[in-house]
Amino acid sequence: MTYCCGLLLKDGLVMIADTRTNAGVDNISVFRKLHTVEGQDRFLAVATAGNLSVTQSVLSNLSNGVRDPITEEVHTLMTVKDMFSAAKLLGDAVATVRRKIAEAVEPEISADVTLLFGGQIAGEEMRFFLIYSEGNFIECEPETPYFQAGETKYGKPILLRSVNYETDLYEALKVGLVSFDSTLRSNLAVGMPIDLLLLRRGELTPELSHRIEVDDVYFHDLGERWSTALRDAIVDIPPVPYGNGNN
Amino acid sequence: MTYCCGLLLKDGLVMIADTRTNAGVDNISVFRKLHTVEGQDRFLAVATAGNLSVTQSVLSNLSNGVRDPITEEVHTLMTVKDMFSAAKLLGDAVATVRRKIAEAVEPEISADVTLLFGGQIAGEEMRFFLIYSEGNFIECEPETPYFQAGETKYGKPILLRSVNYETDLYEALKVGLVSFDSTLRSNLAVGMPIDLLLLRRGELTPELSHRIEVDDVYFHDLGERWSTALRDAIVDIPPVPYGNGNN
Repeated sequence: MTYCCGLLLKDGLVMIADTRTNAGVDNISVFRKLHTVEGQDRFLAVATAGNLSVTQSVLSNLSNGVRDPITEEVHTLMTVKDMFSAAKLLGDAVATVRRKIAEAVEPEISADVTLLFGGQIAGEEMRFFLIYSEGNFIECEPETPYFQAGETKYGKPILLRSVNYETDLYEALKVGLVSFDSTLRSNLAVGMPIDLLLLRRGELTPELSHRIEVDDVYFHDLGERWSTALRDAIVDIPPVPYGNGNN
Repeated sequence: MTYCCGLLLKDGLVMIADTRTNAGVDNISVFRKLHTVEGQDRFLAVATAGNLSVTQSVLSNLSNGVRDPITEEVHTLMTVKDMFSAAKLLGDAVATVRRKIAEAVEPEISADVTLLFGGQIAGEEMRFFLIYSEGNFIECEPETPYFQAGETKYGKPILLRSVNYETDLYEALKVGLVSFDSTLRSNLAVGMPIDLLLLRRGELTPELSHRIEVDDVYFHDLGERWSTALRDAIVDIPPVPYGNGNN
């Protein structure tokens, strides 16, 4: 399992991913799941969830270049001309690799993956996509300005309630970290450290690219403050008006 | 889908269940999932999640009485002598009914169910169990003083952070309602109205037994207050200290 989420807001993109992979609870490892592609005219980021052999092969194939069956041109994420073509390149690579690995491992092991892919290519709007195992994808829009992948449910309520398209990027990053804290507390298959990045709209260099280690004081404090705030918020809600005791 | 949860705390038991059943998003109905058995020497409650034909048959079979294969005695939840025997009676009934229905409907339709079963029989401690499809069960203990069934993940973080064994029953009820609000916002297969009950330790009559209807002003207000409190809590957490902008 994995948890990753990304938010495409008015001011830019925030992406966060954990680093735990596991084959059973007795076999866990740390692997980076937030990958970047950096060029003079682009900054792209891919967060991966699901079968690690599939996502690693996809990224390796893409860095070697994938031949377009029609034009015969070989493309990588560094050479592809726009974000939509990049999402399509990734999607096609996912579908091809996943189909091959699925034949060998399913149904015992799932070969499914989900990719969050976002970034900025010069001369284009910033875009953010969620790519499915089958290679098709959807694009993030202002009305629901985030995507999640992997263990999505524990961390969803806070995103749903606390973020909209206008939210400041650093506030959104805090919400994202609370969403991670909630998930980490409930699912052992999601684990520290956590990688994050923040890319302002129109920029080609991230304003923030950081790994939060397991002993990070701020992240620990954030979880504690959040728990306290929730307990206070419960107290502040008026008592239930139902029944004898409170009517 | 369904969401139900129950909390066995120092002062007593709180149980909450939604009422939505669905066979696809285009076929939803309202069915009570929080059932009670009330006698002079007992108050028992069962919240059901999963295949409705299984849970309804289990409850019908039990109200008719189930013959013990060894003693040949016929028992219902009204006659069984203690909470452990009641949980066993329920578990056996679940296993029998579910096995038979599973033969007919699986793998297309899941026959799985989960039951939350709690209450008080005179002369005994109050107890609370989670009963699985296979008929085995676990009992709630002070360290993790709640059980959930059905769509459990969206509503778990708030339970995990905000309730412990010492929590006041009405505070715990508020937490439970927030947990429901979070779940209702994320899963269409969980729906209003919501049934709830509150039974104080040692009592055989619930202090509170109520249905929250879809237009309930308090419940709507609780959701709004909660969203506002979360947004305020985010603002109150210090800014992230990582990166250039904030170092």
